[in-house]
Amino acid sequence: MTTTDVHSTHQEREREVTEKVLASFADTPDPRLREVMGSLVEHLHAFVRDVRLTEAEWERAIGFLKAVGDITDENRQEFILLSDVLGASMLTVAVNAPDEPSATEATVFGPFFVEDAPLVERGGDIANGATGVPCYVEGTVRDVHGRPVPGARIEVWECDDEGFYDVQHDDDRRYGRAHLFSGEDGAYDFWCVEPVPYPIPHDGPVGELLAATGRSPMRAPHLHFMVSAPGHHTLITHIFVAGGEHLDDDAVFGVKESLILDFDRQPAGSAPRGREVGEPWSRTRFDIVLAEEARA
Amino acid sequence: MTTTDVHSTHQEREREVTEKVLASFADTPDPRLREVMGSLVEHLHAFVRDVRLTEAEWERAIGFLKAVGDITDENRQEFILLSDVLGASMLTVAVNAPDEPSATEATVFGPFFVEDAPLVERGGDIANGATGVPCYVEGTVRDVHGRPVPGARIEVWECDDEGFYDVQHDDDRRYGRAHLFSGEDGAYDFWCVEPVPYPIPHDGPVGELLAATGRSPMRAPHLHFMVSAPGHHTLITHIFVAGGEHLDDDAVFGVKESLILDFDRQPAGSAPRGREVGEPWSRTRFDIVLAEEARA
Ligand SMILES: [Fe+2]
Ligand SMILES: [Fe+2]
Repeated sequence: MTTTDVHSTHQEREREVTEKVLASFADTPDPRLREVMGSLVEHLHAFVRDVRLTEAEWERAIGFLKAVGDITDENRQEFILLSDVLGASMLTVAVNAPDEPSATEATVFGPFFVEDAPLVERGGDIANGATGVPCYVEGTVRDVHGRPVPGARIEVWECDDEGFYDVQHDDDRRYGRAHLFSGEDGAYDFWCVEPVPYPIPHDGPVGELLAATGRSPMRAPHLHFMVSAPGHHTLITHIFVAGGEHLDDDAVFGVKESLILDFDRQPAGSAPRGREVGEPWSRTRFDIVLAEEARA
Repeated sequence: MTTTDVHSTHQEREREVTEKVLASFADTPDPRLREVMGSLVEHLHAFVRDVRLTEAEWERAIGFLKAVGDITDENRQEFILLSDVLGASMLTVAVNAPDEPSATEATVFGPFFVEDAPLVERGGDIANGATGVPCYVEGTVRDVHGRPVPGARIEVWECDDEGFYDVQHDDDRRYGRAHLFSGEDGAYDFWCVEPVPYPIPHDGPVGELLAATGRSPMRAPHLHFMVSAPGHHTLITHIFVAGGEHLDDDAVFGVKESLILDFDRQPAGSAPRGREVGEPWSRTRFDIVLAEEARA
């Protein structure tokens, strides 16, 4: 038997395993689950075959997944972090984005959103004690035809200038998050603090993976938005600070060119909404375009 | 802009995510880790794109993995079960099998092996209290040239006729496992109990997946072997009972045609090794062929 023959037998034996596994899912009652499991098996098996996964590597993979499970609880979602650093979260966002190039681009949701953040009036301050450089944000919410979207609900959330979201403290403090509504003309504005870079939690197995692959755990400075209005596709996105660190190596691949905005530093003194600011502050403008809601 | 153009932009945005993630792993110092992570990203992303994974499905996947982590501890290895029912364990075995068609085929290791099982003399009984139909197993260990392999270490382990391995009990009882050595002529023989079908643990998320996909958690009846000898590739395999249940839908895809053996039922009475058996018993023959150890 020639070497080629032997190899062919080997490949046949490998393919036989995959065929058996695919067949085992063929009677899945739910057609969508059948489709998803079939594709998962094909791609998982192609990975194992392509890299010629050794048994020692398989054991390391099992041990890694166990470690991810061990550190995960209600407050620490290491599987989400894993999905994030593998780009699976951002790719899922991209796959589900409306087919509407003129709409504002979406990015990752992240783990720090909280339901029922306080309401602020237009022009109000969402910082609520978060430390940092005062920052004024203004813009409009419009549809893809340029028409104002009044009454859009705008959720915003951010970390303080030490890189911590309020929920990362053990107590129940709330800062750096609020919701407000756009006016009749679609306009909105609020005060916050200028975003800073921060690391994703990297004291667990995902952090070890980043270290072993020479990657940074840092995220580029950003402010989270979620904008919803009846008849429109809910937009989940960030704005990023032009010139900020880690725009090129954001740990979760959230940066989109179109979402990088100038934050213009201003001298101390009079500022919008009647504020007198005793230190330099910054301002930016973020005009939001919502896609129409997909029809069912 | 035509629909085609829009779709093309959408695909470009998706591909851009994948390219960024691949680039992030490009500086991984260890070349093998770089290769594995690159392939993992390509296949994981292809899966997300191919099925057009929704955000709700992504959340279910995260919840499923968290549930697998939650039930896993030192004694319950749900990630191994998951790998098993997706055929990733069996495919890893196939990928690492020696390129030697005349050698005995390998199959999955399973979670029930224990180090330092007792030694039995040739012809001894490994049942050690395991209930079941008495069963006599004999055979030889040879190399691919037909030469006997003397002194091969043969580990065997099995469940009792209620489908439980000793380690599945809370106490420290030991039954249904032992090791022995082949003789100068490569021959070996021992008594055990005839294998029966048993379910893999299916009271967790992997069991739910099997139920949702209409799959059985049962394994075809089998007896585990691990055979090692200096200069030879260690063989990890099972033998299966011809005519047994679940040969066609073994939950972990371990069945190989070449490993299905006749277990011949015998009447009560005189039996090998001087035994008088007061009930029907069975016997089988398993001739083992070890591949040469791969040279480094
Ligand atoms: Fe964030
Ligand atoms: Fe078993």
